[in-house]
Amino acid sequence: MKIAVLGHGTVGSGVCEILWNKNSEVSSAAGKPVELGYVLDIKELENVPYSEKYTKDFSAILSDPEVGTVAECIGGLEPAYSYIKSALENGKNAVTSNKELVAEKGAELLSIARAHNVNFLFEASVGGGIPLIRPLYSAMNAAGITEIAGILNGTTNYILTKMFRFGTGYSEALSDAQKLGYAERDPSADVLGWDSCRKIAILSSLVWGKTLKPSEIPTEGIDKISADDVKTAEQCGFSIKLLARAKQLSDGKIFAKVSPALVKNDSPLATVNDVFNAVLIKAETTGEVLFYGKGAGKMPTASSVIADIIEAEKTDGNIKSVFWEDGAQSAAAEKDSVSERYFIRTDYDVSALLLKAEKVSDLAYITNPLNDSEISVLEEKINEHGKLLSKIPVFE
Amino acid sequence: MKIAVLGHGTVGSGVCEILWNKNSEVSSAAGKPVELGYVLDIKELENVPYSEKYTKDFSAILSDPEVGTVAECIGGLEPAYSYIKSALENGKNAVTSNKELVAEKGAELLSIARAHNVNFLFEASVGGGIPLIRPLYSAMNAAGITEIAGILNGTTNYILTKMFRFGTGYSEALSDAQKLGYAERDPSADVLGWDSCRKIAILSSLVWGKTLKPSEIPTEGIDKISADDVKTAEQCGFSIKLLARAKQLSDGKIFAKVSPALVKNDSPLATVNDVFNAVLIKAETTGEVLFYGKGAGKMPTASSVIADIIEAEKTDGNIKSVFWEDGAQSAAAEKDSVSERYFIRTDYDVSALLLKAEKVSDLAYITNPLNDSEISVLEEKINEHGKLLSKIPVFE
Repeated sequence: MKIAVLGHGTVGSGVCEILWNKNSEVSSAAGKPVELGYVLDIKELENVPYSEKYTKDFSAILSDPEVGTVAECIGGLEPAYSYIKSALENGKNAVTSNKELVAEKGAELLSIARAHNVNFLFEASVGGGIPLIRPLYSAMNAAGITEIAGILNGTTNYILTKMFRFGTGYSEALSDAQKLGYAERDPSADVLGWDSCRKIAILSSLVWGKTLKPSEIPTEGIDKISADDVKTAEQCGFSIKLLARAKQLSDGKIFAKVSPALVKNDSPLATVNDVFNAVLIKAETTGEVLFYGKGAGKMPTASSVIADIIEAEKTDGNIKSVFWEDGAQSAAAEKDSVSERYFIRTDYDVSALLLKAEKVSDLAYITNPLNDSEISVLEEKINEHGKLLSKIPVFE
Repeated sequence: MKIAVLGHGTVGSGVCEILWNKNSEVSSAAGKPVELGYVLDIKELENVPYSEKYTKDFSAILSDPEVGTVAECIGGLEPAYSYIKSALENGKNAVTSNKELVAEKGAELLSIARAHNVNFLFEASVGGGIPLIRPLYSAMNAAGITEIAGILNGTTNYILTKMFRFGTGYSEALSDAQKLGYAERDPSADVLGWDSCRKIAILSSLVWGKTLKPSEIPTEGIDKISADDVKTAEQCGFSIKLLARAKQLSDGKIFAKVSPALVKNDSPLATVNDVFNAVLIKAETTGEVLFYGKGAGKMPTASSVIADIIEAEKTDGNIKSVFWEDGAQSAAAEKDSVSERYFIRTDYDVSALLLKAEKVSDLAYITNPLNDSEISVLEEKINEHGKLLSKIPVFE
């Protein structure tokens, strides 16, 4: 079968390289001959051994019956969405590394894939080279997953690690990450948590079978974390990590949240440093399981796209467990349905306001469990006579 | 399809419970109705809702065309081997949690499975509830895996964690593990490294496609590790872990070894504590990937058996990438083909013998890289005038 790679950027060129250079390994894993058939991009391919595969005509790909799988590595919603939709409707598998597309259009594309008995797979959309999506829909499918907590963004984890290790401030750590190419010139999508938000939306939708939209997930970035927060947390035995979390409540609704969080230093998530990602899964039958690895980068991500190409080519028909649907009602839990302890720092002694809190350091406390409204009320009260400097939930 | 569970011990009863209580989830994941068909054991089932499924007659299972998969949870070589062989030859899938069987008879059973276009799967044989085997043969199949390093035995990891945290001696920590039920009354298979040896033999055979026998893997346990080793290593920034390692050398041969090893405290393996297991995979395309979770226990292990049942039932025909064969020559690397640094402790100053070594503490050193013969020669030299108290390789 022929594979059509859409987009010849960082990930797409990695996919082409593996298909070209490791053709026999890929074919052997797929159980049939698989080859690079087309590479679609706006601009022509230069200095690559597979330049003859270039096309800018998607309809040529669509009408070639030998194309079994389309690998979309363009990014963004359009034209990625239209291409994938047409491919699926024409009985071709589609695989993608595009988290925005999967988070926004997943339910629709999965439903089209099912209707045409082909597959829409997206291992590379979360966790780069970490095999994560497939264990969730295969090995752990009947494990009774109750909770997911992940460090899903390498850029922010690099910044927080730097702050933790060297006492660096946020701006300095960010600028260092930019110099090293770990952060983009406009780092908003990473540091404000949007990237993590899309990824946890995908994981939650997949695990519990109902769309959770990025817009339904309260999302806070790391841009307000100070060197003092990191230092005080460390003195109390915690690291600060940007966590993307989702948890099924007893009524079936999903509590999800992206925010900095205090993680106990003996938790396996605390030792996930630098640009590494990790996802902790809690399940009824397996207990805690953690997946760890590089969450980004050309070859790790391309490798996950290849894994999906293999899975799509070797599977006969639609994989039933890769599916979620848009519910009539939102899957998101109501406000105030979950209470958490908070690490707070203030600029004056608030012990009198915090009868049930633990004072962990001078002007730093860990509260009793509070829901959204309660922490807001507390914040207002504290700000009447001084200032609440930080409020960061404690991951437990 | 009907599932036949062989053996109603700890794991087998867990498999039966999941098949019985979560039947609709399992069927949905398998894409077809799947039910508990038979439970074979020597003694009758008592106080279980599925007691009517009891049989002691394996031929009844073999001759029932509705049995699609046999789940072997008896343990040991016989009758497990004969049952699985007959099942495969009769066109039924077989899945197992039996590491001894897979390590000793894997190549033969995989070849029979392939010849009959069915599957022989063994997710539960390594790493309990951690989804590990499947990512290795599916997602990471074309990733170019170069090295595996795992903490594959929960009992020894519990003992070493106890020694590290509380300065306890080996015997006391072992007796504590026995009291808690983490170690058996005869703990040999765990503490002498045999369990880890079988597991790394399975992983190595699967990843590089050629049988590596447990008997070909140099195996050393934790029974000689002292509180002083643990303390001195800790002072130098290391933990001591029982590592099971395998690495493909440039000539294609496999260097494998089970032994205590020093692991840097910032390695993700260092924070794997108590009864948890973890496997670090190094691959060309994905870099380092780590899988972490409970390596044993009734429900985690049963959950992995269920995952294999689902995989076997939903897959049409033999999965080509789950395979290894006995080579004409041994897959094991020659003695002395790999050099490693060693942490050594002595009862007198040996600085004069160790010109290239680093003195890390009083009477403790980390040597330059040495192969097996070289470390033996060094040991002899040191023992001429005093005693080499410990030699533990450094994992890098």
